[in-house]
Amino acid sequence: MYEGVTSHARRIERSLPAEWYFDAAQYQRELERIWYRRWIYVGRADAIPEPLDYVTHRIGTQVVLVLRDERGAIRAFHNTCRHRGSALCRAPSGRLAGGRITCAYHGWSYNLRGELARLPLHDRPRPDGLDGLGLYPVAVTEWRGFVFVNLASEKASTFESSAGDVLESLAHWPLAELQVGHTHSRTVQCNWKIFWENYHECLHCPAVHPALSALVPIYKRGIMEPGDDPDWIDHSDSVDPAYRGGLRANAVSWTMNGQACGASFAGLTAEERRIGYHYLTLLPSMYIAAHVDYVRVVRLQPVSPETTEVFTQWLFPAATLNSPEFELENAVRFAAQVMTEDAAVCELAQQGQRALSYSCGVLMPEEYAVHDFQQWVRAELAH
Amino acid sequence: MYEGVTSHARRIERSLPAEWYFDAAQYQRELERIWYRRWIYVGRADAIPEPLDYVTHRIGTQVVLVLRDERGAIRAFHNTCRHRGSALCRAPSGRLAGGRITCAYHGWSYNLRGELARLPLHDRPRPDGLDGLGLYPVAVTEWRGFVFVNLASEKASTFESSAGDVLESLAHWPLAELQVGHTHSRTVQCNWKIFWENYHECLHCPAVHPALSALVPIYKRGIMEPGDDPDWIDHSDSVDPAYRGGLRANAVSWTMNGQACGASFAGLTAEERRIGYHYLTLLPSMYIAAHVDYVRVVRLQPVSPETTEVFTQWLFPAATLNSPEFELENAVRFAAQVMTEDAAVCELAQQGQRALSYSCGVLMPEEYAVHDFQQWVRAELAH
Amino acid sequence: MYEGVTSHARRIERSLPAEWYFDAAQYQRELERIWYRRWIYVGRADAIPEPLDYVTHRIGTQVVLVLRDERGAIRAFHNTCRHRGSALCRAPSGRLAGGRITCAYHGWSYNLRGELARLPLHDRPRPDGLDGLGLYPVAVTEWRGFVFVNLASEKASTFESSAGDVLESLAHWPLAELQVGHTHSRTVQCNWKIFWENYHECLHCPAVHPALSALVPIYKRGIMEPGDDPDWIDHSDSVDPAYRGGLRANAVSWTMNGQACGASFAGLTAEERRIGYHYLTLLPSMYIAAHVDYVRVVRLQPVSPETTEVFTQWLFPAATLNSPEFELENAVRFAAQVMTEDAAVCELAQQGQRALSYSCGVLMPEEYAVHDFQQWVRAELAH
Repeated sequence: MYEGVTSHARRIERSLPAEWYFDAAQYQRELERIWYRRWIYVGRADAIPEPLDYVTHRIGTQVVLVLRDERGAIRAFHNTCRHRGSALCRAPSGRLAGGRITCAYHGWSYNLRGELARLPLHDRPRPDGLDGLGLYPVAVTEWRGFVFVNLASEKASTFESSAGDVLESLAHWPLAELQVGHTHSRTVQCNWKIFWENYHECLHCPAVHPALSALVPIYKRGIMEPGDDPDWIDHSDSVDPAYRGGLRANAVSWTMNGQACGASFAGLTAEERRIGYHYLTLLPSMYIAAHVDYVRVVRLQPVSPETTEVFTQWLFPAATLNSPEFELENAVRFAAQVMTEDAAVCELAQQGQRALSYSCGVLMPEEYAVHDFQQWVRAELAH
Repeated sequence: MYEGVTSHARRIERSLPAEWYFDAAQYQRELERIWYRRWIYVGRADAIPEPLDYVTHRIGTQVVLVLRDERGAIRAFHNTCRHRGSALCRAPSGRLAGGRITCAYHGWSYNLRGELARLPLHDRPRPDGLDGLGLYPVAVTEWRGFVFVNLASEKASTFESSAGDVLESLAHWPLAELQVGHTHSRTVQCNWKIFWENYHECLHCPAVHPALSALVPIYKRGIMEPGDDPDWIDHSDSVDPAYRGGLRANAVSWTMNGQACGASFAGLTAEERRIGYHYLTLLPSMYIAAHVDYVRVVRLQPVSPETTEVFTQWLFPAATLNSPEFELENAVRFAAQVMTEDAAVCELAQQGQRALSYSCGVLMPEEYAVHDFQQWVRAELAH
Repeated sequence: MYEGVTSHARRIERSLPAEWYFDAAQYQRELERIWYRRWIYVGRADAIPEPLDYVTHRIGTQVVLVLRDERGAIRAFHNTCRHRGSALCRAPSGRLAGGRITCAYHGWSYNLRGELARLPLHDRPRPDGLDGLGLYPVAVTEWRGFVFVNLASEKASTFESSAGDVLESLAHWPLAELQVGHTHSRTVQCNWKIFWENYHECLHCPAVHPALSALVPIYKRGIMEPGDDPDWIDHSDSVDPAYRGGLRANAVSWTMNGQACGASFAGLTAEERRIGYHYLTLLPSMYIAAHVDYVRVVRLQPVSPETTEVFTQWLFPAATLNSPEFELENAVRFAAQVMTEDAAVCELAQQGQRALSYSCGVLMPEEYAVHDFQQWVRAELAH
């Protein structure tokens, strides 16, 4: 039906096959070809501030142990003992006493480089063949305070080459220095791709996000950027934020009252301040939303074909958090409400996918970024 | 063992393969070849009395939207938006404000013929390729106040040709004029076919249904009809209901006290009154049990290989419901008790199917109607 | 890595493939090739002391009915009616009134030899072809008060030939005369093989079982027998239980205070008394731990690939149970605590199996009995 449509700017596209949103085998393929090969955000580096600190992190069925070694370097390993496969660290976070990762079952212990360090009862007459039995390493990197792991391990390309130019987009924000001021998690009954598709378009904004559409007038028009408007040239001189983007008059940030919740970041350009919201997306696991006064980090964790866990962190400058005038509720409630609205429509989108006659949906021209995301998924699955 | 048995009237037959009662792939096959191809009862037409009223109805994994259009015609569609597959109507019933089916996600709206009517933000420069994007239709029909849908849609044969002569059997009951006076639903832990097999024989009646067997004396003999008795000719002159069927002396209906719960239907024959219970079966989803004073409708909904939801409606003349002397409890409790007894033995029958040595059961001569049902299942699966 | 290791006593071995501990198809294979072919412990014979008593017992998806017939013989059948597959006995235990196993659905009844005895409503003109329709028999045997069944039925080899010489090991214990004094059940979130692997080595004892390692000093050294020590010859004259096995000084049994909870068994040898604990293992379903004063029986029931139910019975002489000085808590709490500790590490071992890089673990020389168990599993699956 829409095959012959070629008008570039006004083209509609086929969406992904409907069964990709609920089929268990497809879900497993996506875990293996995307989640187990890409750099996955696991948390802020300051969650393990001191040597010997660790966190554990789940990606699909995998559990990764992320730790800071004696010299301060971050390392990551599969959380599995080489002896008989026991889980090593059981708490979500903690401290590796004595600089050893010790299995609670038979006491095998590993140093923080993952090497087998001690076998209780076997230290002297140790049998042959144990020397290579270190923990299985997982590639890990820190980028401006964010820690990422990659289960492809030595086959993983570097984080920077994998992420590409997008890493420049928040260059003026002091990301490494920010602190977590609030966190939230939510189980959403949808496939992980539906969450990302919702993220990548604003056609739903007028009906779904009334408060956000009032704060960001261009969203009320269902578009994300001035150039999304086919008639943009007619409004190229407009100073109305409904046409040139940015926040409504008298608002500077995504907060309940539109005001900043603390001092603005010093290094931002005038344009960055005027717009008031900037995104950095690192598929498949996270995006960063940066405002003039704070930064929000959203992380995804697929749980099953039709279930996704969504974790949100609000990052602030220390000075903001320490200020007696700081009002946490004003800072976090606005975005939390937007996410509640998004979760509801993501669940709605999930519920209709199984109709026998429905093989796939369509994407409107304004959903070009959803199409780009879907092309990325297709490409990831192809190799 | 029973292959050589040929005596027509006294023959025993093999039952269906045991794994057909619990195997997930077989269950899926039955959904696809039976439930998604046959006319399925969804409810009474007066559940959507006015234009713009709707109900949603689940068949296996499918959700069908059934509505009454502006001209009073009943229509049905898959409850899935053509844009990106969202569920459209979320409540089990409601009203389509403005005569539009509107998706809560991006606001696509369809008229009550299922045609794409309005795209918010796109009404003027609408991209090409959207014209065919109406809702996926589902075949629907009304028969004497009962609404049926068929997911085979345009491939479905007509309801009347599909149902055949059985539709004549309750010709004397004013089915279209009756009103729902009571409803009940119950989750039974059995395969849907076990429910139907139980329905199709009365060998279990003496032990399982003592009150019913007292009300219907022939049931106490484990048979359903006088002709089921191999010695029927010896009793062909008997006026004893244990031999000629019908209710016990001094009872006229299936109620707690055996008395009618309101005026009898005017058009019944003397024989219909004497018998006191008449069935109309429309596989796979429903049967109607008609008495002289009320009608009972039972609807099945398969939930999983070993779970079936059973819904019951009691239909009465308006005059009965409006009568100050009407006692609902007397009218509904009798059949509710019979169904509770049936549910218990259906669950028992389910529990023994997995025994390694048990490949299938046997059907007694009196279970000829179970055999007919099983032959119907085999035939449905074969094409 | 460990392929070249050949030194006999100090060899390390590969463990089973990691996916055998969670894969659903492998679990099904193990049910079919091990649990449905081996003799499975179902309980003590005195659980059905009188003719007509029965118990039902689950093995994987199978339910076996074990009963005592009129002459006192124990018999077992699939708990499934030959008519249409209903479950027959619904309670975990009970009494077969009238010496009949009667189906609650249509009343088919079987005598205690499993033969079809009576069809209600069909006793005189019974249709042909029903004569062979007895209950499906399951092989059953009693050995010294313990009842075992075998779903391979007539293909099963005898219990004695299947069990072999191990049956001699507790010859001096009056097993048949003991009575159940306490029972306990626990759901452990691990594959059934992980439970057995834990049972077959004591390398974990020092860290996991501090009280047990104090009671049995050789366990504190991580080994089970004096010969497990590569330097055993240096200690062959030692009377220290850390080298020659047995209980710590001044202890005689596995109880909280180390003292016997009643009179010692009369027939034990001095060596049997000195050691104080003796095992008899009957894979895959049970082991017996025998002490000088009581006996403990542990039974496994696989529930899913990652779930196992563990039942424990404490058996005592009647005189002990009847003694006013008997302290149940002292007798049972010690072993219950050991089992709680084992359950925790079994669950830990389960949790690490899915790591992508982990294909299997390694077995230390001291884990020779785990290796033997794994070789047994491999052999069972091979035929």
